[in-house]
Amino acid sequence: MSITPNVLATRYATKEMVAIFDPINKIINERKFWITILKLQQKAGLPITDGDIKAYEQVIEKVELASIDKREIKTRHDVKARIEEFNALSGVEKIHIGLTSRDLTENIEVIQIKAGLELIEYRVLQTLFLLGEKISKYEKTYMVGRSHNVAAQVTTLGKRFASCAEELLFAHTALKELIVRLPLRGIKGPVGTSQDALDAMGKDFTNLEESIADDYGFENTWASVGQIYPRSVDFEVVSKLLQIASAPSSMATTIRLMAGSGLVSEGFKAGQVGSSAMPHKKNSRSSERINGMMVLLRGYNTMASDLAGDQWNEGDVSCSVVRRVVIPDTFYVLDGLLHTFMTILQEFGVFEEKIKAELDEQLPLLATTKLLMECVKAGMGREVAHQIIKKHSTTTAPSELFAAIGSEKEFPLSLEQMNRLIQNPSDFAGLSVEQANKVKDMIKLQINGKLSKVELTDLR
Amino acid sequence: MSITPNVLATRYATKEMVAIFDPINKIINERKFWITILKLQQKAGLPITDGDIKAYEQVIEKVELASIDKREIKTRHDVKARIEEFNALSGVEKIHIGLTSRDLTENIEVIQIKAGLELIEYRVLQTLFLLGEKISKYEKTYMVGRSHNVAAQVTTLGKRFASCAEELLFAHTALKELIVRLPLRGIKGPVGTSQDALDAMGKDFTNLEESIADDYGFENTWASVGQIYPRSVDFEVVSKLLQIASAPSSMATTIRLMAGSGLVSEGFKAGQVGSSAMPHKKNSRSSERINGMMVLLRGYNTMASDLAGDQWNEGDVSCSVVRRVVIPDTFYVLDGLLHTFMTILQEFGVFEEKIKAELDEQLPLLATTKLLMECVKAGMGREVAHQIIKKHSTTTAPSELFAAIGSEKEFPLSLEQMNRLIQNPSDFAGLSVEQANKVKDMIKLQINGKLSKVELTDLR
Amino acid sequence: MSITPNVLATRYATKEMVAIFDPINKIINERKFWITILKLQQKAGLPITDGDIKAYEQVIEKVELASIDKREIKTRHDVKARIEEFNALSGVEKIHIGLTSRDLTENIEVIQIKAGLELIEYRVLQTLFLLGEKISKYEKTYMVGRSHNVAAQVTTLGKRFASCAEELLFAHTALKELIVRLPLRGIKGPVGTSQDALDAMGKDFTNLEESIADDYGFENTWASVGQIYPRSVDFEVVSKLLQIASAPSSMATTIRLMAGSGLVSEGFKAGQVGSSAMPHKKNSRSSERINGMMVLLRGYNTMASDLAGDQWNEGDVSCSVVRRVVIPDTFYVLDGLLHTFMTILQEFGVFEEKIKAELDEQLPLLATTKLLMECVKAGMGREVAHQIIKKHSTTTAPSELFAAIGSEKEFPLSLEQMNRLIQNPSDFAGLSVEQANKVKDMIKLQINGKLSKVELTDLR
Amino acid sequence: MSITPNVLATRYATKEMVAIFDPINKIINERKFWITILKLQQKAGLPITDGDIKAYEQVIEKVELASIDKREIKTRHDVKARIEEFNALSGVEKIHIGLTSRDLTENIEVIQIKAGLELIEYRVLQTLFLLGEKISKYEKTYMVGRSHNVAAQVTTLGKRFASCAEELLFAHTALKELIVRLPLRGIKGPVGTSQDALDAMGKDFTNLEESIADDYGFENTWASVGQIYPRSVDFEVVSKLLQIASAPSSMATTIRLMAGSGLVSEGFKAGQVGSSAMPHKKNSRSSERINGMMVLLRGYNTMASDLAGDQWNEGDVSCSVVRRVVIPDTFYVLDGLLHTFMTILQEFGVFEEKIKAELDEQLPLLATTKLLMECVKAGMGREVAHQIIKKHSTTTAPSELFAAIGSEKEFPLSLEQMNRLIQNPSDFAGLSVEQANKVKDMIKLQINGKLSKVELTDLR
Repeated sequence: MSITPNVLATRYATKEMVAIFDPINKIINERKFWITILKLQQKAGLPITDGDIKAYEQVIEKVELASIDKREIKTRHDVKARIEEFNALSGVEKIHIGLTSRDLTENIEVIQIKAGLELIEYRVLQTLFLLGEKISKYEKTYMVGRSHNVAAQVTTLGKRFASCAEELLFAHTALKELIVRLPLRGIKGPVGTSQDALDAMGKDFTNLEESIADDYGFENTWASVGQIYPRSVDFEVVSKLLQIASAPSSMATTIRLMAGSGLVSEGFKAGQVGSSAMPHKKNSRSSERINGMMVLLRGYNTMASDLAGDQWNEGDVSCSVVRRVVIPDTFYVLDGLLHTFMTILQEFGVFEEKIKAELDEQLPLLATTKLLMECVKAGMGREVAHQIIKKHSTTTAPSELFAAIGSEKEFPLSLEQMNRLIQNPSDFAGLSVEQANKVKDMIKLQINGKLSKVELTDLR
Repeated sequence: MSITPNVLATRYATKEMVAIFDPINKIINERKFWITILKLQQKAGLPITDGDIKAYEQVIEKVELASIDKREIKTRHDVKARIEEFNALSGVEKIHIGLTSRDLTENIEVIQIKAGLELIEYRVLQTLFLLGEKISKYEKTYMVGRSHNVAAQVTTLGKRFASCAEELLFAHTALKELIVRLPLRGIKGPVGTSQDALDAMGKDFTNLEESIADDYGFENTWASVGQIYPRSVDFEVVSKLLQIASAPSSMATTIRLMAGSGLVSEGFKAGQVGSSAMPHKKNSRSSERINGMMVLLRGYNTMASDLAGDQWNEGDVSCSVVRRVVIPDTFYVLDGLLHTFMTILQEFGVFEEKIKAELDEQLPLLATTKLLMECVKAGMGREVAHQIIKKHSTTTAPSELFAAIGSEKEFPLSLEQMNRLIQNPSDFAGLSVEQANKVKDMIKLQINGKLSKVELTDLR
Repeated sequence: MSITPNVLATRYATKEMVAIFDPINKIINERKFWITILKLQQKAGLPITDGDIKAYEQVIEKVELASIDKREIKTRHDVKARIEEFNALSGVEKIHIGLTSRDLTENIEVIQIKAGLELIEYRVLQTLFLLGEKISKYEKTYMVGRSHNVAAQVTTLGKRFASCAEELLFAHTALKELIVRLPLRGIKGPVGTSQDALDAMGKDFTNLEESIADDYGFENTWASVGQIYPRSVDFEVVSKLLQIASAPSSMATTIRLMAGSGLVSEGFKAGQVGSSAMPHKKNSRSSERINGMMVLLRGYNTMASDLAGDQWNEGDVSCSVVRRVVIPDTFYVLDGLLHTFMTILQEFGVFEEKIKAELDEQLPLLATTKLLMECVKAGMGREVAHQIIKKHSTTTAPSELFAAIGSEKEFPLSLEQMNRLIQNPSDFAGLSVEQANKVKDMIKLQINGKLSKVELTDLR
Repeated sequence: MSITPNVLATRYATKEMVAIFDPINKIINERKFWITILKLQQKAGLPITDGDIKAYEQVIEKVELASIDKREIKTRHDVKARIEEFNALSGVEKIHIGLTSRDLTENIEVIQIKAGLELIEYRVLQTLFLLGEKISKYEKTYMVGRSHNVAAQVTTLGKRFASCAEELLFAHTALKELIVRLPLRGIKGPVGTSQDALDAMGKDFTNLEESIADDYGFENTWASVGQIYPRSVDFEVVSKLLQIASAPSSMATTIRLMAGSGLVSEGFKAGQVGSSAMPHKKNSRSSERINGMMVLLRGYNTMASDLAGDQWNEGDVSCSVVRRVVIPDTFYVLDGLLHTFMTILQEFGVFEEKIKAELDEQLPLLATTKLLMECVKAGMGREVAHQIIKKHSTTTAPSELFAAIGSEKEFPLSLEQMNRLIQNPSDFAGLSVEQANKVKDMIKLQINGKLSKVELTDLR
């Protein structure tokens, strides 16, 4: 029997994200955390020698998971197993004084979460950069806009990317707010009163929490918690990650729809010319995957919501197995989703002739609201005009629509007037170009020199 | 057969919240919105007379749901029905020019959402005020703190309320950020290009969007959307409401646990004395209800997450039936939850003798980590000390614990030393008082003179 | 302020379903339940006169919600309020002896659930009947089958309906199993031991539970529960309802996709001819609504899952507010969903020319797997053949495909052979007709004379 | 960087369950499936030699994941990679003829699901066996039953286990129904018409599907599906697994509550005597874990529900990434949950003196409903009696309750009568013993000689 791998980490997440939650890296981080505290405790007068610290430092990177596992089976306690291992390796027994398990794990985990959020923030910037390129490239690619999945009015492909980008920008702001606010849990002991740390370190204790927060880049530390920090914070994290995925997911759905009509392909071969060729790969597998990843995020969101508001007294480990799964897996999924989306954006291509053919076919129909406007300007009642236009637009093929409407006696526009109306598709595209440019400017403001091109990270 | 009422609106939500989503109020708001636009269109030169506007204004409040329903059955379109009704009442036919249905509904709904969020923000302040009172009142009520639902260390009841308050404060900050950011949808037409509004109003159009945003207190308006604004915004709203509910929900769970041990009651009769009497109402029905409401919020959160990232092209009405339920119902539930929680806070009482009796019984056991510290200070290895203490604390009743430990030959503390250690429970409560006071200050900063007492709103 | 109605009951559910959960009907049912027990208690020798029973019977239908509400505000207990009202109306004080609140509500609610399930089972049969009609009608409507939303192979529209029907049939079986199994809760008292009922009735008690179960058509009664029956049963109910909705929901999605390509319409006017006319109503609003309703069901499913496995000891009312919402609302939604789906099935129409045009265009492409088969039969290696065909099918327009492939030297089939292959679309449709007929037979077996046509129930 | 393991498979699931979804085993199963079909195709006259088959058979177990991964990176298609690997190993190119990817994966996956369900069914029997033991052991352990987490009436610990068992039995029946019904997907090709298989095998095709179903123990095969079988089946599977977890999860919650009051321990040392000793391990970590695992199941249930009803046309791979996670992980979690629960049942112990002390203290209070009965029998009105008893029971300590009630002039029972009432706790336990025995019989019927004792499987 092989080792069952975490399929999300091994198939979809980038190596940077996998590194953040890597089991060995986590243990190394814990050891560094212990040593940080050890040094501060030494200053506070606890009987800790330079030799003790050095002994620990020399074995920081000696991580043997099998040995730790063996200890855990014996102690039935994971943190205890890791303490014993580190002590055994160093030959000293000084770490973890004044701490409870959660003083270690709660802090390490929120440090991982912060790192994960920061990496995601970077991925969002990368994605916005690529969206910006698409907005420019397809600025004037006029096409059929659809509501209810049927032709409604003219839009541009650039605007479609712009709408995606603006939704993502909104989530990006929310993400940045959270990163700034996210608090360190601090050294609070088994019921949150910091009793043990006080006993161990006396008045120096407060400085300790501040020093750690500074070291790890946190602006806030909780003032009053129990054994654990409130799980509504985990929920905010997970729900924020879902929010970020929403814009790419909707765009992926739209790509699947467009590909179904032969308008675009998520995977264009280099050098291939869109106007005359068929896609080398017509199945929108990557877009489908994004929609699937969105489903995963919704489930992790359910799990995280189930921990929020369910704390008993000062807390326990009923959340433990959940967080072991939800926290890394949510980050793996979103990271993989953004990576997949960036691949799509880089390989995306259009079949211009198909797009144009569809637009030409539908244009008379798309002009109906413009006709309505012209009728009102010409003095006809809005509802009367609406009725006439509706009658024909729902019973006549687009190509014969104008003739049919023109045959109505009281209709104020001539066939010629109507045909002149649809001469230029851009006349029907409203502010789509201006809107897209506005979003491009918003993207620039966020990128602000941080990126000049995007190279995709390797998957693990 | 009676009218089936919305049970959340009629049983749990306050009348202020019900008013925000009241069906008649919504229609009135729509009519005001139409008239606002009518006036701006008049300025822009559309053929609209003062008489037209007046005719509409005179019938704003004449709302007959039955008549509108009858129209909807005929047209199979809800907005169309409301347009026709308003036109029929006024005898004019000028509203909704240059608009699509969603130009009306998307804006009205986000205006409702903003009002709902602002009311919730006020409810959170009220709740924080009451929590502040409890923190003060129970500042020195020392009690058994529990991890894994078993006695762990000493804490105070004041700190328990403080931890709840700080979790709520964190969510409160997140809520305020969202309120500031929340954008108006704007007049974007069926595919988001604003084509129809441009046709109707020409260059004056941009001013129109700005004017509306100003009127309704929005700092932002979407630049590029489709027929609908992105549903990830609705998800952020719903998930934020769930986050706010988390602190009260965890506190409610803890109250249920404490009440089960006879320590507190969520419903104390006025004049009743906690120390000698039993609760007049022992069942924590209100706390149970809060936990139930949390379950509802989780379900609405699932629904909202299912709309996020699922937009087809420029949008459709597949989200319509969902939002009809999720948006008002989530607000009703959270409003009712906070109202219930405030009632609990106002009627909450403690059985001091029971709390003290439990603490006295457990104190020797709770002192074990302190013993551990003292051993380390006295030069004993941490793991050795841990082993001795653990051996006895898991096999001896708390009252006989010190004698048992003292009997171990190498143990460095005498029985007398141990008994002296537990003389004063406050010595075991760490920073619980200081932490609680810190949170009280954070609350004051938020209240900042806005509230001097809390009176509960009537339910509907 | 108007009464806020339950939007699901008033807009979407049929009057039969609304009646099952109607608040007044529920009270009437409770009263009948009390009287049933009263009569059995009389037999068992309790001091109950015929006059007492008659006094109650005369006021069964006198339900004034306002009066009961007033009592509830005073007692803070809903069942107590209804007892007092019934006693006051009758002038007797004999009901509810030996019962606790949950002995009433748990049974009444499972009786409602059973009625709801049975109505849904009937709706499923109605839906299957209509699906059967569509399977027949479109048995030979050959069309492009799609995987990944792009043309893949030939199928029939009849088969699409058959696949929907078979998925529904599978859920139907599961539903019937549940209806048979569903147990009555019985008269178990506050902790489930039936202590109070025993005290009140002695040895006759067991007969009582059996009699009630018989009366209400239950085959099973719980042997050992607490104050409440296990909430995993509610979860099974809700998840079953979601399962039933799945087939219509997937079909609705497919209709939205087909309508987007102009192939079908969910709303055809009577007398309209599909081949030459455009749809009178092109927006698939009803199909979109079904997809939206599916989202609601997913959320209620989350809520129900949150109650399962969360019972404290013998139970409490933390589930109460949840069940007030989830149970009726889930039934309203699914009832409305099936009603909407049946409307679609009745008004559904196709644009045959469009369907044929699409098929003709894609046929050479759809024949590729058949080409592959023929190559293998002609002795070519499968992977080699696959490579040649793939090369051209992904770079050449369908109409020029055969020529391109034929130009490959080692390719074993001539252009003529290839063209002959696609002469008849039915040659590419595999077993679609046979499969559809098989499903039609399965439907017949379930209907089995119970329905000869379907008339839609009025909405409330 | 280490390999990121699937934490559920490596920490919690048993080796039998891990084997079912083991990546290497899956590949071996696929190869066996291909060979099964190859043999049937040989019979049907396809150009397949005995040597071909033998060449494949010799390399069935030669699975090198790295080599397959390398192929997948090149082909961007996972099944294609596995075909090429198997062909390369055997030097033949005959498998997968007439099949599409999903003909392989959909069947293999449903075969895995069936195996998983059957293993779970066995785990449920094991659990029921152990529950039966506990029901017997604690048949007469009278204790305080609680509603709203406060003392309500007398029950037995045996009944608590019986209620858990009966809830589990109900889910067990549902599970068995599903196992019988679960259909094989069959060889249906890319749009479900079996076109390719027909082309490859002609009239022998139908026998093929039947033979496979027989081989793998399926009673049903789908008649009409698309590329994939309906995902509402996956949802039924996942929701069923959640339903099974509910009874253990509620019991775990109750154990956490009981342990919090010092009544029981989930982990008793062998030889330890409950009456005088404290638990060797007081933290209910395993019970907490079960509640956490329930949260995971709820999230996977959300994911599965999101796939149900979301099929586009004949299907695609948007469900692929979801099912890679949800299906194995749900089985791992439930398997681990049941394993954990069985460990608890085996190590569970009680502190009899504590249980008795609590009961003695509360008994006068618990007798109140019995008092009420006696009053009614003595001719007092139920509501009047209720009022008197309630008045004192909510303001008087249990030990002084009878005296207080007795002091009420019109009260029909003397102090002596009342004290006689509570002499024997079993008089207050209603049918708890009989109910528990009834459930024990139901368990026996299911076990029916299949198990005589339970030995826990090793974790992976």
